[in-house]
Amino acid sequence: MGVTIRKLVRQDRAAVHEMLSACGAFTAEEIGVALEVFDEGIPGGSEGPYIHFAAEIGGEVCGYVCVGQTPMTDATWHLYWICAHPRAQKAGVGRALQMHAEWFVRGRGGARIVLETSGQPSYARVHEFYRKAGYCEVGRIRDFYKAGDDCIIYCKEL
Amino acid sequence: MGVTIRKLVRQDRAAVHEMLSACGAFTAEEIGVALEVFDEGIPGGSEGPYIHFAAEIGGEVCGYVCVGQTPMTDATWHLYWICAHPRAQKAGVGRALQMHAEWFVRGRGGARIVLETSGQPSYARVHEFYRKAGYCEVGRIRDFYKAGDDCIIYCKEL
Repeated sequence: MGVTIRKLVRQDRAAVHEMLSACGAFTAEEIGVALEVFDEGIPGGSEGPYIHFAAEIGGEVCGYVCVGQTPMTDATWHLYWICAHPRAQKAGVGRALQMHAEWFVRGRGGARIVLETSGQPSYARVHEFYRKAGYCEVGRIRDFYKAGDDCIIYCKEL
Repeated sequence: MGVTIRKLVRQDRAAVHEMLSACGAFTAEEIGVALEVFDEGIPGGSEGPYIHFAAEIGGEVCGYVCVGQTPMTDATWHLYWICAHPRAQKAGVGRALQMHAEWFVRGRGGARIVLETSGQPSYARVHEFYRKAGYCEVGRIRDFYKAGDDCIIYCKEL
């Protein structure tokens, strides 16, 4: 079954909460912030600081992405959150969301996407995911999240 | 006359607006965002996401700084804004604010301060200011603000 991308809506909140917990990549605090951003951004449609898209397989939400134009910049956007449910990660959900986000940003005149992620060894697959998609490391802040947990900043020119 | 540091209060808003315009470093959009952050952070005292301090010389506000703990981190803080009125820049107002901010962050258990600034040639003095204070470049995002205007990310371990 293929992956369908659509706008995320308020009714998806429980599914989003569940996948944020199930994917294992986020702390309780990070999940709380992601849900705050969800509540602020929806229903914002395709306007506002936080724009969300859902990925569906067989009518079931199994991933989402959140992007927004970076304040005080001409054409820079941030990819704030991307999450795929573990049961759907091999179906290309993350890739479909990332490609849709880039297509959307390009359509809004965006010239680049910036994102931040953890440098911990357990994130190796995440880094491979972004590098394969053309994201380049443009910064690294040692011990940013906590001791031994660096922040890696990636950027892709669209 | 020496520089005194105190909490910024709501009554300082006009002085803050004036120095943001007068210092010449900020666009209209950036000034708008700085004032939004002022309105959100004051009166927040020394709690909340945005903590502000004022610099005074002879009873007159001539500079301010805004810091806050970086969400989703253990001990990382951001220096969001620092501004000195042009008539006071040679009096060491910027340095006094930066040192006070670091002292405050250290007292809260902060281990590092991150800040972002423009890479434009007109910011050469700003970069010198931070390097002299022990900030190291940890990232650079080309054309971040606009074409030809990179974002330079600095970090100082406290």
